[in-house]
Amino acid sequence: MQVKSLVAVAGGGLVERRSFLRKGLSLGSLAVAADALHAESKPSAPIGDQLPRPMKTPGGGDAPYGLPTVHESKVVRTESRTAGFSVWRSPLQAQRGIITPSGLHFATHHNGVPDITPENHSLMIHGLVDRPLKFDIESLQRYPMVSRIHFLECAGNSAANALSITALDQSLGELAGEVSCSEWTGIPLSYLFREAGVKDKGAWVIAEGADAGSHARSLPMSAVLKDGFLALYQNGERLRASQGYPMRLFMPGWEGNVNVKWLHRLEVVDGPAFTKDESGLYSQVLSNGQIERFAFHMEVKSVITHPSGTQQMPQAHGFYEISGLAWSGRGSIAKVEVSTDGGQSWALANLHGPVLDRAFTRFSIPWQWNGKKAVLMSRATDTTGRVQPTRQSWKARYAAHSFNHYNAIQAWAVGKNGRVENTYA
Amino acid sequence: MQVKSLVAVAGGGLVERRSFLRKGLSLGSLAVAADALHAESKPSAPIGDQLPRPMKTPGGGDAPYGLPTVHESKVVRTESRTAGFSVWRSPLQAQRGIITPSGLHFATHHNGVPDITPENHSLMIHGLVDRPLKFDIESLQRYPMVSRIHFLECAGNSAANALSITALDQSLGELAGEVSCSEWTGIPLSYLFREAGVKDKGAWVIAEGADAGSHARSLPMSAVLKDGFLALYQNGERLRASQGYPMRLFMPGWEGNVNVKWLHRLEVVDGPAFTKDESGLYSQVLSNGQIERFAFHMEVKSVITHPSGTQQMPQAHGFYEISGLAWSGRGSIAKVEVSTDGGQSWALANLHGPVLDRAFTRFSIPWQWNGKKAVLMSRATDTTGRVQPTRQSWKARYAAHSFNHYNAIQAWAVGKNGRVENTYA
Repeated sequence: MQVKSLVAVAGGGLVERRSFLRKGLSLGSLAVAADALHAESKPSAPIGDQLPRPMKTPGGGDAPYGLPTVHESKVVRTESRTAGFSVWRSPLQAQRGIITPSGLHFATHHNGVPDITPENHSLMIHGLVDRPLKFDIESLQRYPMVSRIHFLECAGNSAANALSITALDQSLGELAGEVSCSEWTGIPLSYLFREAGVKDKGAWVIAEGADAGSHARSLPMSAVLKDGFLALYQNGERLRASQGYPMRLFMPGWEGNVNVKWLHRLEVVDGPAFTKDESGLYSQVLSNGQIERFAFHMEVKSVITHPSGTQQMPQAHGFYEISGLAWSGRGSIAKVEVSTDGGQSWALANLHGPVLDRAFTRFSIPWQWNGKKAVLMSRATDTTGRVQPTRQSWKARYAAHSFNHYNAIQAWAVGKNGRVENTYA
Repeated sequence: MQVKSLVAVAGGGLVERRSFLRKGLSLGSLAVAADALHAESKPSAPIGDQLPRPMKTPGGGDAPYGLPTVHESKVVRTESRTAGFSVWRSPLQAQRGIITPSGLHFATHHNGVPDITPENHSLMIHGLVDRPLKFDIESLQRYPMVSRIHFLECAGNSAANALSITALDQSLGELAGEVSCSEWTGIPLSYLFREAGVKDKGAWVIAEGADAGSHARSLPMSAVLKDGFLALYQNGERLRASQGYPMRLFMPGWEGNVNVKWLHRLEVVDGPAFTKDESGLYSQVLSNGQIERFAFHMEVKSVITHPSGTQQMPQAHGFYEISGLAWSGRGSIAKVEVSTDGGQSWALANLHGPVLDRAFTRFSIPWQWNGKKAVLMSRATDTTGRVQPTRQSWKARYAAHSFNHYNAIQAWAVGKNGRVENTYA
């Protein structure tokens, strides 16, 4: 394969996508000449000997509910646990596209996963309403539903990068895998609140889960009526137990724990309850000593998924596609810039459609690696104009021990040997 | 709950969506007054006795690869098998939204599911090319990839409705479950063919799978270069074995079997090969005796998923949301009309976004059922102006024994007792 010239768009080998597509791939020799393949088979051998083994015997069976192949058994979530608190991180470095399969969706449990029999579960709406109501699953199934592709991110995602003084040499999933994206289906909460009749003073809602942590959060009623829905389905099927089966609150773009799982109670109140969850874990100290409460939105963020931390690039130089995910709890992604020289120069990445509101957006850019040290970065901007901060600027805003809502630029150092490592560079 | 008046948009109780949303739900009494709930607990009982059981003991564990809850174990694919031929149908009547979870994606196997070790698999491009090439998985992972949300439908989907003289009383999944929709990710085949260099006479491609059926199909090169990609991922993770692991051909909008699974060979040729698969199973006799070959596109089609065949509507009258799926192999869905009086009157359904090219599109319309017999129908129109035919008109086009590419309007009869049944009415 001959290497053709490409139009550079930034330092370090980032190339212009259209020239890249027009001029053909300058991939060096990724493919092997098929003559070599033919030479492997003896010309005198019967044709059957040249066929792959699976073509010579009937294949195996399938299952009523299909599972991943055993050859991909390493692609799983990783758990970290402290007391009853358990976090399952999604292997983002293995994901392509924008949909996270439900089996790999991140999960945070404050006191384990309750096993709820749907017939024994109901949702109560009470407090400052005209008519306290109780909804069982069968009746909820008759309501009009909406489906939305949205990301969901834990407030504490990327905590290690916020807290650790040196950059931990971990995979992307281990560092920032508390975020995923699914198609969620459910009933707009405005329908249910309209039936109950919210009184004038009903400005807030307390959402409580039926779990052993009795996780509870207060939400402004106006936001819930505008955007909130009662999610019953994820990626086309009923919720998994670890995602709140039989029902959860869903607030697009808001920090994960507000999307209360195993929801059984919505109490309309006149002000926030300052529950243990919102006064403790999910409040955050600023660098000036003030406390930031009810910071619901997850801010604009992006990560390069390919190549990423702990990966070994298979060849010392040549063509690679840099690819990653961007999202914002404030709206859609407007642009993503990529640098391979540690932020000295930047180029616009290609955004893959559909670019959806408060959803993962896939970006990519062609990269001709020269085999020298490189530092890869991505910087996303959302439709409100917000831009990802540097780590330094994020750290300046918060107290040293704060770690929630970390959305600083993620950098990957590429060594001459092709190894990729987390860096604060 | 008081029942409010709604604007009718067609006979049989179809109501206008905006008036429905503006005036509030007229759902009769789906919800139960929560006072009844309170009355159940004795006032003197300790508060703990009033809590749901899962709030009183710590929850269980989670798994590295999550699975559906045991409470939804009935939501599975159903198999029908003839000799080595096996079809797994997706339970569309249980799906909400547009994404089918990979575990429930339909599958057709001509000779079982091969177990392919990825390190032993490669894709060969040969025939009328300048440079025959062989691609292994590791090298393919470096190519630029695209992600697309597309439906996939078996040519023989809905065969029972095409062939059976009386309408079979089956569920939607059993009748028409050989269609699903996923996010597929892979490498545009134009990149790989450009590397190999297609000779001028190379007008067709033979795609062969490494399965024991040695399934092979011929495709026009122009279409493959425009639209075809080598799919490596489905819904964010590597392909399931039953979907072609480690790689399959993907041709958006074309009949399922053309999307050759376990792809190991693309041979560039000057004309179609008339393989056993395309000369036999996937050719179809018209009513005038002529044979229709290479009818690649799946035509515009829709089905109402809620309510649908064999379901029992839980109440004799009142509010329901009619919801369903529409798709076309020719483009996007332009509109879906719904009738509840057997096609005497029609109303426009609401299309839920994103409305994507050659993908499932969810539609819905509010329905105030009066408790009398009803016949529900949906009729989709795509962006090329093609409209779903009636069963009668579809049957007139093809010979009596033909059953591929059946896309006629699906009708559901609702009895006074609320039972829903397949009908040709």
